Amino acid sequence: MQLIDGKKISLLLQEQIAKEVKELIAAEKKQPHLAAILVGNDGGSETYVAAKIKACENVGFKSTLIKHPDYVTEEKLLQSVIDLNNNPDIDGFIVQLPLPRHINEHKIIETILPSKDVDGFHPINVGRMVLNLPCYVSATPFGIVQLLEKYNIETKGKHCVVLGRSHIVGSPMSILLAKNTALGNCTVTLCHSKTENLIEHTRKADIIICALGSPEFLKADMVKDGAVVIDVGTTRVESTETKSGFKLKGDVKFDEVAPKCSFITPVPGGVGPMTIASLIKNTLLAAKKEIYR
Amino acid sequence: MQLIDGKKISLLLQEQIAKEVKELIAAEKKQPHLAAILVGNDGGSETYVAAKIKACENVGFKSTLIKHPDYVTEEKLLQSVIDLNNNPDIDGFIVQLPLPRHINEHKIIETILPSKDVDGFHPINVGRMVLNLPCYVSATPFGIVQLLEKYNIETKGKHCVVLGRSHIVGSPMSILLAKNTALGNCTVTLCHSKTENLIEHTRKADIIICALGSPEFLKADMVKDGAVVIDVGTTRVESTETKSGFKLKGDVKFDEVAPKCSFITPVPGGVGPMTIASLIKNTLLAAKKEIYR
Repeated sequence: MQLIDGKKISLLLQEQIAKEVKELIAAEKKQPHLAAILVGNDGGSETYVAAKIKACENVGFKSTLIKHPDYVTEEKLLQSVIDLNNNPDIDGFIVQLPLPRHINEHKIIETILPSKDVDGFHPINVGRMVLNLPCYVSATPFGIVQLLEKYNIETKGKHCVVLGRSHIVGSPMSILLAKNTALGNCTVTLCHSKTENLIEHTRKADIIICALGSPEFLKADMVKDGAVVIDVGTTRVESTETKSGFKLKGDVKFDEVAPKCSFITPVPGGVGPMTIASLIKNTLLAAKKEIYR
Repeated sequence: MQLIDGKKISLLLQEQIAKEVKELIAAEKKQPHLAAILVGNDGGSETYVAAKIKACENVGFKSTLIKHPDYVTEEKLLQSVIDLNNNPDIDGFIVQLPLPRHINEHKIIETILPSKDVDGFHPINVGRMVLNLPCYVSATPFGIVQLLEKYNIETKGKHCVVLGRSHIVGSPMSILLAKNTALGNCTVTLCHSKTENLIEHTRKADIIICALGSPEFLKADMVKDGAVVIDVGTTRVESTETKSGFKLKGDVKFDEVAPKCSFITPVPGGVGPMTIASLIKNTLLAAKKEIYR
């Protein structure tokens, strides 16, 4: 069993990007600039955004954080998006989700210029991904694909079972891995809450992507020997073992599943760190105008 | 075994639409208007476009056919698209594919206004389909979903195997059937040319959507008893039995597969006629501005 070290790969990718940023600046090209819009005071959202801003510093990007109170009007938030669209210094930006209930999330996302949508959530980027056209692939699926690549995990012809059909992970993951590309060509089965006889699907899988948000859902008897298991779950559960009073639990019962695997990602330190590296990578692509001109 | 009569359902749908058009006109609302751009003299394309124009007549739509020679420049074709975008009388239009090699198909499609893209090929419509937002679903997948609905074929929790990952059928079909909607909620496995042990997947399927374009590919031993089989294949093969000198062959070896099925579509007369009904339906939605305002 080999542990997939997402933290290490994420830092390696960020080092490569930092080197490239130095070269850009030395060549008097524009310094990449990521902005983030944060609404309200959700602890999780604040932590994620802070980590993204910190990653920008690490790689030498400029970053801008725009904060709105949780009672911000939709109109005002839309204006904030439009301002970033129109600001030529901003290469890409994200609106941290989830948003308060009184705001139409889709309306906000569809207002982001596709060329600055480095989260890859705009329908145009999603559609372009499906159609195999240049696009920003959203951070978590992009991160997973990069992990498979770095560990030379063969996908071609393999049977991959994706658990969970969220717009952010499961659904794009199932699309990416089935495509006729070097990092795709899997036979993909997409399972979800309505799937019957789930265990019959997972037991046959060469690769399992577990993205349910259900702690320790995947047990040893659901996995065949030698499988590759990617754990996307990150549920905060209370814990007396940590200072913060909680710890992150994955979707996989790690202790019993890991011994059966050829490769497995831990939680934390697996997929999570790759998400940030992917966002940074998308921002670099935006600054270099490699996706949209 | 019950035969799924796509021709009958298609005509029923067109009758309903014709009735609605009469009501629209009686209420002094706008008569729906579909345009089609046809490039070159490909026999198949000419036949398809003629059938679409005829369907418009049948339901009381206005229709416009714009023909270009196969040596038309990309610039001129783009202008033709832009003219239709700007023409307020045109509710929706299609550019019949395939296009000659010197023309960038994606560029043409991305120039179509998403609100007039009744073929549902624009990345925004594809992305909106993935994200469960209002959109035009492309005609063949939309037609198949309507057939399943009309025959009360349960999809929820069923295992559906889709053969083929084309942008026009297999890929959107796999996405639609996996979604959390009344006509979705299947566990979907997407198989393709790189799939290993294909028969192990098809033999387990409750529903098989065969969209490979490979005549008589699906044999009896690949199908379990009681399966629902949807045959999307329409390959022209030479034949001495018909006046035209060819006949359409599906992807399913019908004679041996049909007796094992609970439901099966024939070729011709199954999925094919539904494609036209779906295009007409999308055009009506466009005229009524039900998807985009």
